Amino acid sequence: MTDSIRVLVLHGPNLNLLGTREPEIYGSQTLQEINDLLAASAKEEGVELEFFQSNHEGAVVDRVQEAPSWADGILINPAALTHTSVALRDALAATQLPVVEVHLSNVFAREDFRTHSYITPIAVGMVTGFGPTSYLLGLEALIETLQSRK
Amino acid sequence: MTDSIRVLVLHGPNLNLLGTREPEIYGSQTLQEINDLLAASAKEEGVELEFFQSNHEGAVVDRVQEAPSWADGILINPAALTHTSVALRDALAATQLPVVEVHLSNVFAREDFRTHSYITPIAVGMVTGFGPTSYLLGLEALIETLQSRK
Amino acid sequence: MTDSIRVLVLHGPNLNLLGTREPEIYGSQTLQEINDLLAASAKEEGVELEFFQSNHEGAVVDRVQEAPSWADGILINPAALTHTSVALRDALAATQLPVVEVHLSNVFAREDFRTHSYITPIAVGMVTGFGPTSYLLGLEALIETLQSRK
Amino acid sequence: MTDSIRVLVLHGPNLNLLGTREPEIYGSQTLQEINDLLAASAKEEGVELEFFQSNHEGAVVDRVQEAPSWADGILINPAALTHTSVALRDALAATQLPVVEVHLSNVFAREDFRTHSYITPIAVGMVTGFGPTSYLLGLEALIETLQSRK
Amino acid sequence: MTDSIRVLVLHGPNLNLLGTREPEIYGSQTLQEINDLLAASAKEEGVELEFFQSNHEGAVVDRVQEAPSWADGILINPAALTHTSVALRDALAATQLPVVEVHLSNVFAREDFRTHSYITPIAVGMVTGFGPTSYLLGLEALIETLQSRK
Amino acid sequence: MTDSIRVLVLHGPNLNLLGTREPEIYGSQTLQEINDLLAASAKEEGVELEFFQSNHEGAVVDRVQEAPSWADGILINPAALTHTSVALRDALAATQLPVVEVHLSNVFAREDFRTHSYITPIAVGMVTGFGPTSYLLGLEALIETLQSRK
Amino acid sequence: MTDSIRVLVLHGPNLNLLGTREPEIYGSQTLQEINDLLAASAKEEGVELEFFQSNHEGAVVDRVQEAPSWADGILINPAALTHTSVALRDALAATQLPVVEVHLSNVFAREDFRTHSYITPIAVGMVTGFGPTSYLLGLEALIETLQSRK
Amino acid sequence: MTDSIRVLVLHGPNLNLLGTREPEIYGSQTLQEINDLLAASAKEEGVELEFFQSNHEGAVVDRVQEAPSWADGILINPAALTHTSVALRDALAATQLPVVEVHLSNVFAREDFRTHSYITPIAVGMVTGFGPTSYLLGLEALIETLQSRK
Amino acid sequence: MTDSIRVLVLHGPNLNLLGTREPEIYGSQTLQEINDLLAASAKEEGVELEFFQSNHEGAVVDRVQEAPSWADGILINPAALTHTSVALRDALAATQLPVVEVHLSNVFAREDFRTHSYITPIAVGMVTGFGPTSYLLGLEALIETLQSRK
Amino acid sequence: MTDSIRVLVLHGPNLNLLGTREPEIYGSQTLQEINDLLAASAKEEGVELEFFQSNHEGAVVDRVQEAPSWADGILINPAALTHTSVALRDALAATQLPVVEVHLSNVFAREDFRTHSYITPIAVGMVTGFGPTSYLLGLEALIETLQSRK
Amino acid sequence: MTDSIRVLVLHGPNLNLLGTREPEIYGSQTLQEINDLLAASAKEEGVELEFFQSNHEGAVVDRVQEAPSWADGILINPAALTHTSVALRDALAATQLPVVEVHLSNVFAREDFRTHSYITPIAVGMVTGFGPTSYLLGLEALIETLQSRK
Amino acid sequence: MTDSIRVLVLHGPNLNLLGTREPEIYGSQTLQEINDLLAASAKEEGVELEFFQSNHEGAVVDRVQEAPSWADGILINPAALTHTSVALRDALAATQLPVVEVHLSNVFAREDFRTHSYITPIAVGMVTGFGPTSYLLGLEALIETLQSRK
Repeated sequence: MTDSIRVLVLHGPNLNLLGTREPEIYGSQTLQEINDLLAASAKEEGVELEFFQSNHEGAVVDRVQEAPSWADGILINPAALTHTSVALRDALAATQLPVVEVHLSNVFAREDFRTHSYITPIAVGMVTGFGPTSYLLGLEALIETLQSRK
Repeated sequence: MTDSIRVLVLHGPNLNLLGTREPEIYGSQTLQEINDLLAASAKEEGVELEFFQSNHEGAVVDRVQEAPSWADGILINPAALTHTSVALRDALAATQLPVVEVHLSNVFAREDFRTHSYITPIAVGMVTGFGPTSYLLGLEALIETLQSRK
Repeated sequence: MTDSIRVLVLHGPNLNLLGTREPEIYGSQTLQEINDLLAASAKEEGVELEFFQSNHEGAVVDRVQEAPSWADGILINPAALTHTSVALRDALAATQLPVVEVHLSNVFAREDFRTHSYITPIAVGMVTGFGPTSYLLGLEALIETLQSRK
Repeated sequence: MTDSIRVLVLHGPNLNLLGTREPEIYGSQTLQEINDLLAASAKEEGVELEFFQSNHEGAVVDRVQEAPSWADGILINPAALTHTSVALRDALAATQLPVVEVHLSNVFAREDFRTHSYITPIAVGMVTGFGPTSYLLGLEALIETLQSRK
Repeated sequence: MTDSIRVLVLHGPNLNLLGTREPEIYGSQTLQEINDLLAASAKEEGVELEFFQSNHEGAVVDRVQEAPSWADGILINPAALTHTSVALRDALAATQLPVVEVHLSNVFAREDFRTHSYITPIAVGMVTGFGPTSYLLGLEALIETLQSRK
Repeated sequence: MTDSIRVLVLHGPNLNLLGTREPEIYGSQTLQEINDLLAASAKEEGVELEFFQSNHEGAVVDRVQEAPSWADGILINPAALTHTSVALRDALAATQLPVVEVHLSNVFAREDFRTHSYITPIAVGMVTGFGPTSYLLGLEALIETLQSRK
Repeated sequence: MTDSIRVLVLHGPNLNLLGTREPEIYGSQTLQEINDLLAASAKEEGVELEFFQSNHEGAVVDRVQEAPSWADGILINPAALTHTSVALRDALAATQLPVVEVHLSNVFAREDFRTHSYITPIAVGMVTGFGPTSYLLGLEALIETLQSRK
Repeated sequence: MTDSIRVLVLHGPNLNLLGTREPEIYGSQTLQEINDLLAASAKEEGVELEFFQSNHEGAVVDRVQEAPSWADGILINPAALTHTSVALRDALAATQLPVVEVHLSNVFAREDFRTHSYITPIAVGMVTGFGPTSYLLGLEALIETLQSRK
Repeated sequence: MTDSIRVLVLHGPNLNLLGTREPEIYGSQTLQEINDLLAASAKEEGVELEFFQSNHEGAVVDRVQEAPSWADGILINPAALTHTSVALRDALAATQLPVVEVHLSNVFAREDFRTHSYITPIAVGMVTGFGPTSYLLGLEALIETLQSRK
Repeated sequence: MTDSIRVLVLHGPNLNLLGTREPEIYGSQTLQEINDLLAASAKEEGVELEFFQSNHEGAVVDRVQEAPSWADGILINPAALTHTSVALRDALAATQLPVVEVHLSNVFAREDFRTHSYITPIAVGMVTGFGPTSYLLGLEALIETLQSRK
Repeated sequence: MTDSIRVLVLHGPNLNLLGTREPEIYGSQTLQEINDLLAASAKEEGVELEFFQSNHEGAVVDRVQEAPSWADGILINPAALTHTSVALRDALAATQLPVVEVHLSNVFAREDFRTHSYITPIAVGMVTGFGPTSYLLGLEALIETLQSRK
Repeated sequence: MTDSIRVLVLHGPNLNLLGTREPEIYGSQTLQEINDLLAASAKEEGVELEFFQSNHEGAVVDRVQEAPSWADGILINPAALTHTSVALRDALAATQLPVVEVHLSNVFAREDFRTHSYITPIAVGMVTGFGPTSYLLGLEALIETLQSRK
């Protein structure tokens, strides 16, 4: 139906590798499996999802710019772009959509440079450290945010 | 049943004021209402909860120290102690229980001193910015963590 | 009469020692004597005072939380908590009462760590360096603030 | 005529959104309208312009590398790349063409991270804060620089 | 009488504008009105005052240097010089007179650079945030300091 | 006519030396020649100018304070005061007139201390690096700002 | 006899857990066993000891304040309070008794924040890294200090 | 033969310009000539090479991700990405292949920002400052590393 | 004779107070006595001196600007301006005369802010810590510099 | 007997001066007297000692390198080398012997640069502030460490 | 023959220990074996080598000073002196010979203080992380540098 | 005669190279020539000198320690040790003799690390930037200091 909630799910650089390498850090689930989990969860809630992954900052920015024509909110794991991309921050802010940021690992328990995020200050909130569950919780948070704003 | 999961829910300083003052920042729900939400959610999952709030760092530390005799994990909104309490960090680490940290507001969109947490590096993960929903998501994350470790 | 101004006077850690030790730094007046001076000054102005001192951050926070039910404003010498307590800052801000911060010694002429205050940014103003007179001036300032807001 | 001055006009990430979103910050003119203004101004001066916008750092770098085969100078609003792109700085420096940097908003009146530019030290100069007029002034400055070097 | 207390009241740059511009920040009282308040208060205490305002650091320094031939103490709102003038600090210290520093606004609730003062470490104490009342309290503090030193 | 735009042009310390010394850095034009260029440009636009140069921070502040009685905007090259004068910042902000800051050289390609400006955050915008052209562009920007605010 | 040396032994937050958890870090001896070791050692030297442990900063401060009425010196392992408590520093300094600081682990081989101590600058000295032996050595050092001052 | 060593040679942004511009800094050899040198050297050692250059961070990351299916090690001059790309660091680390980092110029004798590398901490080692020879030495080092691991 | 060396001797803020206040820090000689010492020393060397002291940065800058029409070199004790005046640095550099900087006290043994000088990097050299002798040595150094440049 | 514990006692630069100069800081005991105290204490414990002092970093490093052929542990007062010698740190670490660091004065109550030690992170522990007693306690700690490792 | 290239090979503190201790960090080859490898490599190239190792900064500086009378270039592993010796930097720079710096381990993957080198900015280049191969590559680089300068 | 003033002249690392290399930086005079100049100057004043140069920090420290048995004061150019040697600082301070520090070049116009001196805070004063004249002026200053203390 036309007024179901629609969420764009964005995955930053290197997340396409999930499950195939370094499972001890990032878990053994592939990105496709995470997307499937999200899709299942969204379906229950009557929410539509679109997925996009890229290793190109520019491609992620392009995709973010298109979001307002379809999406009601953005769920994003900016990965490495978290710490380096002002362009992504600006693009997300420009959408004026609610943004929820998620991370698989606990970024505060790793290298110092991972504790700074350009994205969090312009997001609704952030979930970090729970593996694929971070995505599922982030999606819940975003849906709740969108429902409460209606 | 005796082997249901048991979670200690801790609320740091000033959280007893929730709902009664500054609702524009912290929302209009009282701490009791948040606890009720958590209890309802836990019940569905067959999880037992205990609640504790204090404005006294020492009391929170005392309570954390007792946790291992009963709890399987700790859900904590350390509030102001997030930024100032090494004692709380040490107590939580000493329990060797999984800890999930939550915040009502997006601490990364406020004063600079709120972006540093003594707790996150020793937690499983963290949820920030979603109001009472942060607690609910944190509880889900903790339950999942506990179930996956069994 | 019921609509006289009411002020809560708070003294942070170690201020109970005043007059009995290190008089060359903190002066020879006891905390009781300072309270008496304040009471005398308040009486002249038709202002009611309550006093509270504690070495426990949590107890000070508890007392601050109760303030709005009785007090119109808070006069506080946070002492060591000035530099370390986000919980006190948050509690004071939550009262939405005018807060005046005072210090006996000139904190800017001592160790570097004493030049940072968590409290001043959320206070109306601050008085530092004049011994017990700092309290009396702080009380005047607070009364004036309260009168001008009426 | 063949020896008219030729200027490459570059727009960094998110500038394609101009006029359509956040007009209170970036004004209501579209990028096309700004390009038209520049074109009109250039025509008066007998200057040829080419325009390029991209959200991809790599694409901007590619375009900069091609510049020397046609352009005499570069007018650039690096947008978010201002603060993050060493690659753009190196590409611009490698052209050995005069570069003029412009910004629509006053970057020094915004977040701290916007006060650092990788580009300005290797530019002739910079114009910031005047909306679309920043571009027009930057173009004037570049033309004057090019004419004075002849 | 010859042994009444004599205080030099100094106002730094831009304080001559008081009351005429930006009343929402600095209040609606003019500098003359503040001086009159101070004069009235001083008269009650049998204290003599002289006033001086300048936008010239050098003129303020000159005036400070002359102070010891007449004044027993200095009440100063250094305004912008607070944060930038070593010359003023050195001049004040050289007088060996007690100095009290006052500010109309709460400098700790404004820009970061306003939290550093070259003056406070060599002053007896400081009062900040109470509008014209800051001056009156500062005068009281100075008189008390002078009386206690006799 | 009485409603032509009126602009105060201010030159900070050492700018009176222009053209006579260090032409390789600051160019060979004298300050008088720059003023003449500005006057010619202003005349075309029907704008009135007044000029003022001083090596005295206090004199510049005095002149800024008088500006609102005559001028509609201020064009300023604060020179060395850019990096050191809070008094000038405060005076400019107090006028509540639009301020445009200009620099002859590219201050971001020189010593580190020249990259910080007390003025830019309270200005409309800034132009740096184009020699006397910086002034002309700054004047254009100011006129445009004033016209758009009418 | 009345003029034997008397020492107050203070243990900060979480030290009550010693021996029962994380023995690989803090050793397998309980706090009671450490106290017994200290008592045995003190007895040999004819020194009286009192012991106090608390997870409450305020309670530790209270206990420190009472010290001068009985004790000649203080042996303290401030644990987490080392890094966060100005109140404890001020209380210890106010006693004017010699203070010896000890740590079980080598705090300089752990997290960065553990390398800063508010206590050491006002202590006679410090012993770190030798497990329960740190306490025994600290006691010896304190006794020697007290004997040499007699 | 199938078990000869295979090395992916990656060149970051702007390295396609080598030899054609700024030869006084980067030398007069083109990237093709450097590749030819490497190829000749590799041939002698019975090593196979593939080459890739891009100005697009995303394209370099994509290429790195494909590396494990063919290559045994990576020789990379990250150029500007050295200082800005967490995505490249993460991609290289994810390959779990040995990585050798090289630079033509001595990055420690240039601007301060060039002394920080996101890549070196996850590389086997680094060679800087020897022009095209840096690549040849880096290749030798990588081959030796690969041979010693067999 | 007309080609004797001519030196301008400049004294910054508060140096007019020498000898009359704080002799324990700055010595008991007055500025006039120091000037007399310099004059006597200069006379022996056949060097002409002019003296200037001001508490006004602007006046010192004015005087520096006039220097080249008469002086061959500048001997300056910038006093407080050492640490705060970019205008003085720029004026001194613009004269293109050799400048020697002197300080009475050892500025490196005082407050931290006195260890930074805007002047030294553009001076020939500096003498600090020897009281009036610093001036005499500075004069010798300047004369020697001027003679060696002839 | 051959399996008694053997300890190398090292004294860094300037410790040969002990007792002869600045007794108010370093005490009146000579280094020989401290060595005698250590020897007496060691004898009681059946421990053999060798002593070495040098003002030469290289000589101390040489001596450390020889240690493993004879010694079971190292007791060292690195003195000035504490803050400056990576070579000493590396040499001590290379011995793989337990190292105990001692200081006569309380280095945390002196200049800031004395609060950083290159040695402590690779030592078992450290004793600071107790004069010659620091050495005796350090020796006890080292003996205990060695005995517990047997 | 007399015009073969001559290289001085310098090894800093603790490198004499190579192979005998901590082989897991520094490898199992002794310094003599590394020297033999270098000698063999040099012989092939017709290059003469001299070797010198010392734990004494002063001895290394002495040896560097003698270098120009014999050597054409210097290959140095400054070891701990890398991070602490300005004297070595100055001595190397004074020789005006080309210097190549090498490190066995990857200094950028260890403690923070090892990422700063006083030597690299005055060297031709640097090789780090390849064990003894670092020396061989450094020698090649130096020979190539010397040959290209002929 | 026995009560003439005696001065130890110390030269730090690399100063033995003076005049023979890099004359454009350090001048063309050899250290012997500087010593001869000092000796001539000292002779006139009836002052005895001894000279010592070493590239070994330890040797300089040894020599400083012996100074009090003969010398009344120390003239030192610590060269590279200025920035790195706490041992030299401690040795100089321990002599309790007046120390004058000199530098040939203007250390404040060179690399940043040369602007910090461990020596100046414990010296009487410092002379920098005048080539060999720095030594002569430093000697004068030291003689004057010694004479004024008699």
